[in-house]
Amino acid sequence: MAIIESVPNFSEGRRADVIQALIAAIQAPGVLLLDASSDADHNRTVITVAGEPDAVLEGVFRAAALAAQTINLFEHRGEHPRIGATDVIPLAPISGITLEECVPLAHRLGRRIGEELGLPVYLYAAAATRPERRRLPDIRRGEFEGLLTSIHLPERAPDYGPAQVGPAGAVVVGARPFLIAYNIFLDTTDVEVAKAIARQIRESSGGLPAVQAKGFLVDGQAQVSMNLLDASVTPLHVVFDEVARLAQQQGIAITHSEIIGLAPEQVMLAAAAHYLKLRGFQPTATVEGAIQQAALRPLRAGA
Amino acid sequence: MAIIESVPNFSEGRRADVIQALIAAIQAPGVLLLDASSDADHNRTVITVAGEPDAVLEGVFRAAALAAQTINLFEHRGEHPRIGATDVIPLAPISGITLEECVPLAHRLGRRIGEELGLPVYLYAAAATRPERRRLPDIRRGEFEGLLTSIHLPERAPDYGPAQVGPAGAVVVGARPFLIAYNIFLDTTDVEVAKAIARQIRESSGGLPAVQAKGFLVDGQAQVSMNLLDASVTPLHVVFDEVARLAQQQGIAITHSEIIGLAPEQVMLAAAAHYLKLRGFQPTATVEGAIQQAALRPLRAGA
Repeated sequence: MAIIESVPNFSEGRRADVIQALIAAIQAPGVLLLDASSDADHNRTVITVAGEPDAVLEGVFRAAALAAQTINLFEHRGEHPRIGATDVIPLAPISGITLEECVPLAHRLGRRIGEELGLPVYLYAAAATRPERRRLPDIRRGEFEGLLTSIHLPERAPDYGPAQVGPAGAVVVGARPFLIAYNIFLDTTDVEVAKAIARQIRESSGGLPAVQAKGFLVDGQAQVSMNLLDASVTPLHVVFDEVARLAQQQGIAITHSEIIGLAPEQVMLAAAAHYLKLRGFQPTATVEGAIQQAALRPLRAGA
Repeated sequence: MAIIESVPNFSEGRRADVIQALIAAIQAPGVLLLDASSDADHNRTVITVAGEPDAVLEGVFRAAALAAQTINLFEHRGEHPRIGATDVIPLAPISGITLEECVPLAHRLGRRIGEELGLPVYLYAAAATRPERRRLPDIRRGEFEGLLTSIHLPERAPDYGPAQVGPAGAVVVGARPFLIAYNIFLDTTDVEVAKAIARQIRESSGGLPAVQAKGFLVDGQAQVSMNLLDASVTPLHVVFDEVARLAQQQGIAITHSEIIGLAPEQVMLAAAAHYLKLRGFQPTATVEGAIQQAALRPLRAGA
């Protein structure tokens, strides 16, 4: 059974009735609601759902339809950059499906939003149709207000839907690996230590691939705050060990770490196997993994 | 949904047709076959199954019925001590059920085997009805041959079934925590190092609770071979760290470790959380855990 995750971002973080209606709408049959968080300053709501692809696509479409009816970008103010009422819909593989197989799902969803809701749709990340549309910030540059005057340009032609902008703006749909938000806390009050380590480990300054990192001071403690964009490229335990090593060079220890939201089980099992030096460990070596695998086998004769 | 594991041991490890029939019989609807291994020297087959309690109890009963028809203890020879055709049936909680809740299941299965198969049944471990029946070796003392002449004694009175022994012998049924077989390999050819560490960590010589340990030489490498009888008492990572510490005192490193068979996912997640210093980590912080939890919630309005 294929399971995907979607984390649509809606440009409404203040009106409780609209937020509740979006949360209700997204829960089409078979859609599991994993998380929902709204931010009034950002004026934005992020909903995390999972399930089989057909169910997730249906739920996300219903929420996008509702958002187009209830959110007016001409009146929207908030700190977070946005281009539409449903601003971005990432799809990510969780189990039984690859990132490549999520790409046609993004196309299917994008086409439906374009045709049935009449909104311009841009495809990003693994589903991008042009190299310059791979990165979300590039698509969102100029935001809703900029798109009003530029959508007629060839380089702004939508992948699906009409080249015209209404109050619901545009929708960005894509496929990307599962993203892990991970913070490591250092035993120091000096934020510069965290910032220096962040510079050393993030990909953009030549560090670990698929890792974004910044240094912060949180409740008086230095924190390296990271996004792991693809844990199959740089696993969680590799990040932990590297931060520990760099901190250790300055005589500073890690006090603790935290995962914001969710991490795939595979990532945690890989960390356990790494530290326990388990040779040849397979996820099916857990009772639950073996049960799942057994459940997928046809019953034997005599059953 | 409650899931239990059962690992019945049958006194037949040579006749392939009987072994195959036992494996077929145990797979009642809903029973998942996780493992089956036979040993000709021991003349014994160990089958691992899991599933909801009713299904597992039905499957194990069917296999026990077949074993009583096809295995004759008067003719059985093998290195492993045994008291019956179906020698022992442990039940262990996996998820959604406690050890205490497995005790009445052991009683139910024991009563059915006693009444419907007419075999003497002894309850052991958490299901024991007398302190002197908690340990399996104590019940099995004298084996099948000894039971023939002692079953009429008051101290040998079965918990269920008749106080008489036929070719199928007796069956020992019980409830115990999930058992993890775990080996740690040391970077030395000196088996005495492994034996000394085993003595230091096993409960019987004052070491870690719920840990059995022996030292072996495996392919020329020293190995500490352990049974973790209750990972909620002494977790896997505690055992690893303690063996690492004791080995380190002699300047010896751990090369790798291995889990024989299966380990509960919880145990692996706890190890990952320990080494990553994850504060407040919950199993539901995995995507799969959150999906499972969401699936158990009633659907919200609007779904």
